[in-house]
Amino acid sequence: MDKSALIVGAGSGLSAALARALAARGYRCALSARNVEKLSALCTETGAIAIACNAAEPASVDRLFEQLDERLGAPSVVVYNPSARVRGALLELDLAKVAEALAISAYGGFLVAQAAVKRMLPRKEGVILFTGASASIKGYAQSAAFAMGKFALRGLAQSMARELAPQGIHVAHVVIDGGIRSAQRPVPADNPDSLLDPNAIAQNYLHLIEQQRSAWSWEIELRPWVERF
Amino acid sequence: MDKSALIVGAGSGLSAALARALAARGYRCALSARNVEKLSALCTETGAIAIACNAAEPASVDRLFEQLDERLGAPSVVVYNPSARVRGALLELDLAKVAEALAISAYGGFLVAQAAVKRMLPRKEGVILFTGASASIKGYAQSAAFAMGKFALRGLAQSMARELAPQGIHVAHVVIDGGIRSAQRPVPADNPDSLLDPNAIAQNYLHLIEQQRSAWSWEIELRPWVERF
Amino acid sequence: MDKSALIVGAGSGLSAALARALAARGYRCALSARNVEKLSALCTETGAIAIACNAAEPASVDRLFEQLDERLGAPSVVVYNPSARVRGALLELDLAKVAEALAISAYGGFLVAQAAVKRMLPRKEGVILFTGASASIKGYAQSAAFAMGKFALRGLAQSMARELAPQGIHVAHVVIDGGIRSAQRPVPADNPDSLLDPNAIAQNYLHLIEQQRSAWSWEIELRPWVERF
Amino acid sequence: MDKSALIVGAGSGLSAALARALAARGYRCALSARNVEKLSALCTETGAIAIACNAAEPASVDRLFEQLDERLGAPSVVVYNPSARVRGALLELDLAKVAEALAISAYGGFLVAQAAVKRMLPRKEGVILFTGASASIKGYAQSAAFAMGKFALRGLAQSMARELAPQGIHVAHVVIDGGIRSAQRPVPADNPDSLLDPNAIAQNYLHLIEQQRSAWSWEIELRPWVERF
Repeated sequence: MDKSALIVGAGSGLSAALARALAARGYRCALSARNVEKLSALCTETGAIAIACNAAEPASVDRLFEQLDERLGAPSVVVYNPSARVRGALLELDLAKVAEALAISAYGGFLVAQAAVKRMLPRKEGVILFTGASASIKGYAQSAAFAMGKFALRGLAQSMARELAPQGIHVAHVVIDGGIRSAQRPVPADNPDSLLDPNAIAQNYLHLIEQQRSAWSWEIELRPWVERF
Repeated sequence: MDKSALIVGAGSGLSAALARALAARGYRCALSARNVEKLSALCTETGAIAIACNAAEPASVDRLFEQLDERLGAPSVVVYNPSARVRGALLELDLAKVAEALAISAYGGFLVAQAAVKRMLPRKEGVILFTGASASIKGYAQSAAFAMGKFALRGLAQSMARELAPQGIHVAHVVIDGGIRSAQRPVPADNPDSLLDPNAIAQNYLHLIEQQRSAWSWEIELRPWVERF
Repeated sequence: MDKSALIVGAGSGLSAALARALAARGYRCALSARNVEKLSALCTETGAIAIACNAAEPASVDRLFEQLDERLGAPSVVVYNPSARVRGALLELDLAKVAEALAISAYGGFLVAQAAVKRMLPRKEGVILFTGASASIKGYAQSAAFAMGKFALRGLAQSMARELAPQGIHVAHVVIDGGIRSAQRPVPADNPDSLLDPNAIAQNYLHLIEQQRSAWSWEIELRPWVERF
Repeated sequence: MDKSALIVGAGSGLSAALARALAARGYRCALSARNVEKLSALCTETGAIAIACNAAEPASVDRLFEQLDERLGAPSVVVYNPSARVRGALLELDLAKVAEALAISAYGGFLVAQAAVKRMLPRKEGVILFTGASASIKGYAQSAAFAMGKFALRGLAQSMARELAPQGIHVAHVVIDGGIRSAQRPVPADNPDSLLDPNAIAQNYLHLIEQQRSAWSWEIELRPWVERF
């Protein structure tokens, strides 16, 4: 068994937890981000390799997968995390930033997914997970660009799940409905579980990865037991 | 650690798989059905106790929980499975059968849930799982009574999840979107995974039961990788 | 053209507005409620007849339609409004009240719909409208019984729409997502439109009734432009 | 009363029906398309003006609204129709075509909406309607790019509706769930209503435009009474 995983949009939070969880299950991991310098400690810890990539750029995604092919082979699991949150009233949104948000949140997901499927389809297996948000299913005020990107990514995930499940590829979309605890967003001392624990989220990704194919989920939602106000 | 689980609507399929999975995790199980004679082999196998109950009858549910209190104590986990599928064109539906379908699919869920919450709330923990179907989220033709019951159960689950999560009780609804393999519904030899494997479903119930509370799901859908036609 | 309409669950608010709007379009109306004395002024105003009925009782619904047959003939339009809102924490809900809520909100809808369809099907036309609420699509805390009833009614509406549309009967569900202004719930002087105007709602029911059959809606949502807090 | 409407993505089908319906209500109309030559007969018929525009290009949308400002003034109603349907298995999708599909179906909607809101906000009124499809709410196989664009447009519509309703601007999304009859897609002689009649759709757009603000819909679905197979 020689399992490998690619995590696109890797940082210090959810993707780090995922890298640790996958490494603990024996996956060889590749972590991808625009800036990979920040990933060196995590790579050392998990044995993962880091590959720089701008997921919204076709040529960059090509290079990412070429390196992956050389160094780890066809991935068993691909996780797509990146998104661009552009806040502000509709009239104040900058056109270029909206275009970029769509490119990062959605088009990049398509580019990575297409490259992943190309490698998974010959083997008739593989898992592709997309990280969504509350905004994937509800368009909030002051958040049009984020809603557009996240809705689009969910549309991609649904279409792929329907198309690829019968070919053995499990595609699922995870709606993270709440804030994730992090160094920048510490948990309140009296209620550490009012923000999602990245390790708890990672356990759910693992569960999706390991679902038996007669009972696959296409989408799950995750939220803290209490909301933090 | 002294965990116990009550499975209401127990038969030979999903609930048997659940009983086995929970017993393997160290849960002491109680199985409830209108007719418990059919459960004796399963009880022997899993060490579960059987308690007869008509879940749509308040007095019967009272007796169920009184016996449970005496024999296993407050349950850590309660699963509600029963539903009544009444098929036929709207004009052909028998009034009494429609009333009964609502009573079994939905009102019984409320009765069991209320009794369960009464026992879980003092401890600020517990898991209540409701078994849904495709008809929980889509009303099909020729299936009005089943849709009514299953929609109602989902409404109950959502309302309870919102109300009880902040009190430590995890309520989740599982949409089983496909047929479940059984003795009566055997799998095609060339594609055993085109019907949901009860053991695979049970793994998902276990996952919900064990979710860390900073990342709870309120609903998951499960379906086979390929549809069987 | 001899059009008639039956409004079940008639009172002083939405159903009065509906009766006026339908009468203005030339419909002969029948208004049904458990207590019809309160309807006399409205009947005088609109020329409607009043028929007492407990919609959750099969025999009472039978008598309602027998009278309707005699006095107005087969209805072109039937609107089902009744619902029972039971508030309170899950543990405080009275069992009998929950059963009654399901009976009024959902089972009564089935009884009325079945009797209506029986009369519409031979003519291959007719419109059946169900009045929903925010709770039809979202289960709120402290509102389990109302959610169960309203979800169930929506399941009925969807199943009927799918089954009966190809037979010429238009079934639609209206989600009233907000408070309705009334004598008991007056509008704030500085913002009369922060509660739904019953006449504005009635215009939407009329629109559904008059939709051309190549473009039918099965569900619409209505909410005020601003929320009133 | 000097009402004007802009229809973006104008052709021979839905938008022609809309132009006729709006003109009949006294709206002065502007029709916009990449190629406006095809619109000359419709302009003659309805008194509309035609303005060439590539809705996915910021500079082109700027010019469109500058001309609109000069010739009709701030629009009371803006309808956004364009979408790009790219069919094919995920692996066969052309990267540039996917990017273009997102640009036309979603980013162009944002560009037009932002320019429209800029003109509506000072008057605290206006209606913006987005044309959706079945693919707006369900991602179909072999249709990833269309799903991405249509989901994104719906996310935009929801976010705008939530943000702008309290400012007097009514934003709504119309899910056209079925084929629309056209010269290229004629109706079956024995069942003219098995494809949506553009005039019937237009009546629903008019209804949304004329909804009283205490009872606004943010989304409606339209489908034929029978499906054509």
